[in-house]
Amino acid sequence: MTDITIIGSGNMARGIGTRAVAAGRSLQILSRDEAKAAALAAELGASVTSGPPDAVPAGNIVVLAVPYDAAREIVTLLGAALAGKTVIDITNPIDFSTFDSLVVAPGTSAAEELAALAAPGVTIVKAFNTTFAGPLAAETVAGEPLDVFIASDSDEAAAAVASFVQDAGLRPIVAGPLRRARELEGFQLLIMTLQANPAFDTFNWNTSLKVLV
Amino acid sequence: MTDITIIGSGNMARGIGTRAVAAGRSLQILSRDEAKAAALAAELGASVTSGPPDAVPAGNIVVLAVPYDAAREIVTLLGAALAGKTVIDITNPIDFSTFDSLVVAPGTSAAEELAALAAPGVTIVKAFNTTFAGPLAAETVAGEPLDVFIASDSDEAAAAVASFVQDAGLRPIVAGPLRRARELEGFQLLIMTLQANPAFDTFNWNTSLKVLV
Repeated sequence: MTDITIIGSGNMARGIGTRAVAAGRSLQILSRDEAKAAALAAELGASVTSGPPDAVPAGNIVVLAVPYDAAREIVTLLGAALAGKTVIDITNPIDFSTFDSLVVAPGTSAAEELAALAAPGVTIVKAFNTTFAGPLAAETVAGEPLDVFIASDSDEAAAAVASFVQDAGLRPIVAGPLRRARELEGFQLLIMTLQANPAFDTFNWNTSLKVLV
Repeated sequence: MTDITIIGSGNMARGIGTRAVAAGRSLQILSRDEAKAAALAAELGASVTSGPPDAVPAGNIVVLAVPYDAAREIVTLLGAALAGKTVIDITNPIDFSTFDSLVVAPGTSAAEELAALAAPGVTIVKAFNTTFAGPLAAETVAGEPLDVFIASDSDEAAAAVASFVQDAGLRPIVAGPLRRARELEGFQLLIMTLQANPAFDTFNWNTSLKVLV
């Protein structure tokens, strides 16, 4: 059985896909751009498979490596085909017209909105929204494993994602219930606004957020 | 002239006071516990002065090193005595009855609420809310300067605080307007919930949040 399905074929799909293969998980890449999905699958490993976005995902864990609007469409489109699966929402629902707020209302989150849209039996987990693609592919930052914050209302699903993250060479931080996605998405807005800030010319979409002791 | 006044005499007053002295700033400690203020002043340095909380602060920069409710009281009590000053709000308005949300409404922040309460001419700056007292006193984490996130609607006030932070051996990250305090306070709620989490037995109110490249 395929362990992980990634829907999307962009930089975040590449970053998480790289880590999935490193973790020894079998991997499927689905994308509306089937040629790009096939090319990414071939790049990631000979056993990685690919297909269209409306295929029933083979993985127990399904990563929505697409923007928030597309994640909503996929959760709606796939509906009950996601039942019983752990669906990872990596999105940051930034209002790109202002780059000053989120498109979800204060007091909620993309993850909670996706959970409300999803069919019964689908478990949404927030993860990987504070990790940029480049550092993910690199695995470590300043010699330390990358931190991956995880929020879920299901302890079992959070543990499954944490196990994947750990096996991938990263540090899982299970932060609490799905509503902690509010804080994760909010803070990543702040972090994203810094990336092109001339005061931090080394940042350039390449930073990693780390809890150090 | 005294450069910095800290109102409060607890652990955060000690941490920020330690850095203020290290930065070569003159320092005044005000507290309703005048004996504690005097003891902390003596501990921090021979030239550090102290006094009661209703004294007119001598510093151009006034740090409210007290919980959110007390910060509201101080801003109200001092009123126009703070006009022309840069007032640093370090608070995290946690709802400690649930440890699951903030006491300020979604879509606002303690910093913005304090700015609304303050007399005309008072400039509120959010800073030091993501730094715990122990790491502050230590100055560095994992060999790197501590990150201090700063949010303000005044470029001049943000620059004054950034200059203090830099001189204190820390890295200022000027993150944008005062409303960025929403994201800073929200994320620190998440970070605080991890501190006593048995899954992270090294955390123990001693972590530092760092943006690494």
